[in-house]
Amino acid sequence: MKNTLPMSFSKSIQTRLVLPPDTNHHQSIFGGKVLAYIDEIAAIAAMKHCQGEVVTASFDSVDFVSSAYAGDMIELEAVVSGTGRTSMEVYVRVVSRNIKTGAKKLTTESFVTMVAIDENGKPKEVPGVEPETDFERHLFETGPIRQEHRKQKRALSKKRRA
Amino acid sequence: MKNTLPMSFSKSIQTRLVLPPDTNHHQSIFGGKVLAYIDEIAAIAAMKHCQGEVVTASFDSVDFVSSAYAGDMIELEAVVSGTGRTSMEVYVRVVSRNIKTGAKKLTTESFVTMVAIDENGKPKEVPGVEPETDFERHLFETGPIRQEHRKQKRALSKKRRA
Amino acid sequence: MKNTLPMSFSKSIQTRLVLPPDTNHHQSIFGGKVLAYIDEIAAIAAMKHCQGEVVTASFDSVDFVSSAYAGDMIELEAVVSGTGRTSMEVYVRVVSRNIKTGAKKLTTESFVTMVAIDENGKPKEVPGVEPETDFERHLFETGPIRQEHRKQKRALSKKRRA
Amino acid sequence: MKNTLPMSFSKSIQTRLVLPPDTNHHQSIFGGKVLAYIDEIAAIAAMKHCQGEVVTASFDSVDFVSSAYAGDMIELEAVVSGTGRTSMEVYVRVVSRNIKTGAKKLTTESFVTMVAIDENGKPKEVPGVEPETDFERHLFETGPIRQEHRKQKRALSKKRRA
Amino acid sequence: MKNTLPMSFSKSIQTRLVLPPDTNHHQSIFGGKVLAYIDEIAAIAAMKHCQGEVVTASFDSVDFVSSAYAGDMIELEAVVSGTGRTSMEVYVRVVSRNIKTGAKKLTTESFVTMVAIDENGKPKEVPGVEPETDFERHLFETGPIRQEHRKQKRALSKKRRA
Amino acid sequence: MKNTLPMSFSKSIQTRLVLPPDTNHHQSIFGGKVLAYIDEIAAIAAMKHCQGEVVTASFDSVDFVSSAYAGDMIELEAVVSGTGRTSMEVYVRVVSRNIKTGAKKLTTESFVTMVAIDENGKPKEVPGVEPETDFERHLFETGPIRQEHRKQKRALSKKRRA
Ligand SMILES: CC(C)(COP(=O)(O)OP(=O)(O)OC[C@H]1O[C@@H](n2cnc3c(N)ncnc32)[C@H](O)[C@@H]1OP(=O)(O)O)[C@@H](O)C(=O)NCCC(=O)NCCS
Ligand SMILES: CC(C)(COP(=O)(O)OP(=O)(O)OC[C@H]1O[C@@H](n2cnc3c(N)ncnc32)[C@H](O)[C@@H]1OP(=O)(O)O)[C@@H](O)C(=O)NCCC(=O)NCCS
Ligand SMILES: CC(C)(COP(=O)(O)OP(=O)(O)OC[C@H]1O[C@@H](n2cnc3c(N)ncnc32)[C@H](O)[C@@H]1OP(=O)(O)O)[C@@H](O)C(=O)NCCC(=O)NCCS
Ligand SMILES: CC(C)(COP(=O)(O)OP(=O)(O)OC[C@H]1O[C@@H](n2cnc3c(N)ncnc32)[C@H](O)[C@@H]1OP(=O)(O)O)[C@@H](O)C(=O)NCCC(=O)NCCS
Repeated sequence: MKNTLPMSFSKSIQTRLVLPPDTNHHQSIFGGKVLAYIDEIAAIAAMKHCQGEVVTASFDSVDFVSSAYAGDMIELEAVVSGTGRTSMEVYVRVVSRNIKTGAKKLTTESFVTMVAIDENGKPKEVPGVEPETDFERHLFETGPIRQEHRKQKRALSKKRRA
Repeated sequence: MKNTLPMSFSKSIQTRLVLPPDTNHHQSIFGGKVLAYIDEIAAIAAMKHCQGEVVTASFDSVDFVSSAYAGDMIELEAVVSGTGRTSMEVYVRVVSRNIKTGAKKLTTESFVTMVAIDENGKPKEVPGVEPETDFERHLFETGPIRQEHRKQKRALSKKRRA
Repeated sequence: MKNTLPMSFSKSIQTRLVLPPDTNHHQSIFGGKVLAYIDEIAAIAAMKHCQGEVVTASFDSVDFVSSAYAGDMIELEAVVSGTGRTSMEVYVRVVSRNIKTGAKKLTTESFVTMVAIDENGKPKEVPGVEPETDFERHLFETGPIRQEHRKQKRALSKKRRA
Repeated sequence: MKNTLPMSFSKSIQTRLVLPPDTNHHQSIFGGKVLAYIDEIAAIAAMKHCQGEVVTASFDSVDFVSSAYAGDMIELEAVVSGTGRTSMEVYVRVVSRNIKTGAKKLTTESFVTMVAIDENGKPKEVPGVEPETDFERHLFETGPIRQEHRKQKRALSKKRRA
Repeated sequence: MKNTLPMSFSKSIQTRLVLPPDTNHHQSIFGGKVLAYIDEIAAIAAMKHCQGEVVTASFDSVDFVSSAYAGDMIELEAVVSGTGRTSMEVYVRVVSRNIKTGAKKLTTESFVTMVAIDENGKPKEVPGVEPETDFERHLFETGPIRQEHRKQKRALSKKRRA
Repeated sequence: MKNTLPMSFSKSIQTRLVLPPDTNHHQSIFGGKVLAYIDEIAAIAAMKHCQGEVVTASFDSVDFVSSAYAGDMIELEAVVSGTGRTSMEVYVRVVSRNIKTGAKKLTTESFVTMVAIDENGKPKEVPGVEPETDFERHLFETGPIRQEHRKQKRALSKKRRA
């Protein structure tokens, strides 16, 4: 029988300062930088879950709800929210925090799919995941819908390119 | 009447070498790096189109179809594929190229939405866009479907967070 | 009376991947990189505590107990462990984690002193801190000894330079 | 008989945003950054031409005719303009573009010599190049003069160092 | 008998510009950046002395006496000030220089301990060091006190962690 | 009468480790990186000489005589070798050093022209320079020939572009 890990096992946090090289000349963070940070923390969560190397298979769509500025903090939180045979869906939440006011604002949320790979770069099996809190259960239960949605989109893209 | 620019006007190209800092210790490029490059070239195309500053509003879902390695070239090509009142949809195509064999492989395609902003960071109107080739017309005509799809997803996310 | 915040209020976490640019050509992380990460997370903890800007006043001595390699994870955890009038002592703990074995090893521990500054770069008052757990109380109670030790060393250095 | 490729085959383009880390604290781009970008795009053009690895043998003199600022775009264009047995002369043109006005200004032009190398780092033969447009023919035909000039300068430098 | 090198043999200098990516959004350099530069120049001095690879074993406490700003120069100077069997104590001095006024200010001084390693990462013997000037003799003669002090602190830390 | 400074006044040194991000995936340093380092040290020497800001006006031709690899040291040395009204010619010498063997090899030499600028970016007068050693006198006396040569090349380039 397949091994299963609690969702909290993969929980990973990264708090960073928004620094000048992360921003344009108006000191507002680049969307691309945020995505690169999301990719890093999602990979960390997935690596914790499968105890091995991973590659990024896909990002679901990402809406940048608010911006962050040089001197702000951003907090990224990631958790493996669902698993397939070799793939893991990782939920990432990015929040910015103004230092003076302490005000927190959602920057973006994102679902990233990571695939576990062996030494030859071939997909390999991953443990299952078990939600424990209400929020975790919500993430877990809505996973199959997102998964289905991804498959459809991928089929469509393949057709378009053919 | 609203000003309109040919789609080719915003066409932007970036050819890069995949370098060690872009890759993990197996020398395969990070998904997050690719997304950061996509964001930069999409911003460039959008800035050409609207002759002003832009911010990244959203990324549509992104599938990483194949990888690229240290020593490979990657070629990014971006074009403003559709416009709203203040937003621009930018189509970005990323291809990797093995130097020895010359073999090209699609890495990923992506639709990024950029919004034109004025000096105060407020959205401002953008010119329309006019497709000229068959491929451009295809991008242009399928835009409203993607646009509709984005609106639905955003409504859903808001509901979930509420 | 002076405002006081629980120690946990400033707790800050940063999990990172050790990447090629962080390492020498034997893929072992540079001590200087670790110190730069410690400085960032210590500043974040201090900024949370005083809700304002800070500068690094000093690092206590740092022993690198074990190394970390490209592909490992490192986890940094920081907390404001004591306060003066304008200065905050921040305790930072750095642990590396091998992905395959899951084995964790202490990389280093460090006490960093951060000073809160106002818009003109002048030191400004900070809230007090209150320990809640046993470990926090231990950090808090041993603070004055470290503080005394720092003052003595500083006096000595001044004398030497004079 | 030696293989020959059209000059356009190696044509390579890189459009970039000038970002804060590329500039001094007056937001004007460093000459050294521009040279590093020129080296990258010249290497890309040369690698396309010879389908293998290259090293930079020399830069001809470079005049910085005008500057570029954080927030500007710069466009680099490179083409293999001539070939020896194992060396390739690459012509690179750098233009900056103000986003608001659309005004383009020449930043600099440069001729870079790249040498094709095999797995052991030894120079290896490269295909010839064939110009097709008037501008390409001009580049091609003036190549031997520049080549002669380089050899003389190199001889002189060697004598000076001896 | 053990080989001995003059202290001046390892003397290493690095003059740098403080650039925007080194600073916070108030253009004042990060303590962590200074420490990373100290680590690099200390490693260079130690590598010159032992003609091999080194790793950073520890930093003594560091006081940041004054700051440096984007556009300033900083000058780092390092010298191997004492040796054990496999370890080297490196003295590093960091001075900032305002370009307009020419005024120099001490930023910080630091003693870093580097350990020579062989191809398997095992500590290996290093040559002795011989001071020649008065200042070098002062550094050399006070070394054993600092060395003793480090041993005591390390023992204390071990006890605390046990 | 115009102020004059000894040549040694501007002498500037930078010793660095060649690190993975400076190299291609064969661990050999990029020519562009070397040029960026040359630009930085040349700017530092020029800023010391004129006690103000500078911009890079031009690089004379640069021959890469030998390479340097990840793990090597490189030593850059720069000195203002001649002056015009507002321009300074800076001589830069780059040497690589293998750590194990101690063997030094010339990487490249270069003459860079820096122009002093005031707060509005306009060229401003610089002090004269006075050579003291034989090597300095040689640099100084051959300056006018290089200067004449640069003017001719610049005139030629302008004609070509017209
Ligand atoms: C991701 C990748 C390894 C999948 O390889 P593949 O040959 O398609 O393998 P499979 O068909 O066996 O799929 C493996 C798993 O990945 C999932 N997957 C593949 N493509 C996916 C996508 N675009 N989005 C989400 N999941 C995807 C499959 O559903 C499958 O999941 P399951 O095992 O849980 O059922 C491959 O496409 C790849 O290497 N892509 C590049 C990854 C990369 O380098 N990213 C960084 C930047 S380019
Ligand atoms: C830290 C700094 C602001 C202190 O300024 P100062 O004029 O000495 O101010 P004060 O004497 O009022 O000291 C302010 C507080 O800092 C503490 N402090 C000063 N130097 C310190 C040191 N080296 N280590 C620990 N604490 C120190 C003082 O004890 C005092 O604490 P308290 O208010 O809690 O009692 C000043 O030395 C500075 O700007 N240093 C450079 C900081 C910097 O830029 N660091 C980054 C890299 S250089
Ligand atoms: C460039 C390099 C490979 C030439 O090696 P070499 O032993 O001189 O080889 P050769 O004499 O056979 O020359 C090979 C070709 O390079 C050309 N070449 C050599 N030095 C050159 C220079 N400074 N400028 C222009 N062309 C040069 C030769 O003319 C010859 O061209 P051809 O085959 O088309 O006739 C060698 O000098 C080197 O490795 N330099 C360092 C390169 C490097 O690492 N650069 C990055 C930063 S240091
Ligand atoms: C360099 C620059 C300031 C010269 O401005 P200018 O309007 O030509 O000014 P001037 O004609 O008064 O020349 C000023 C000095 O620069 C020298 N100069 C100008 N162009 C030069 C070149 N390409 N090479 C060497 N010296 C040059 C002139 O000879 C003159 O020297 P002098 O005062 O000692 O006699 C201007 O061309 C510029 O801003 N270029 C861009 C610089 C830059 O940003 N570089 C970084 C990367 S783009």
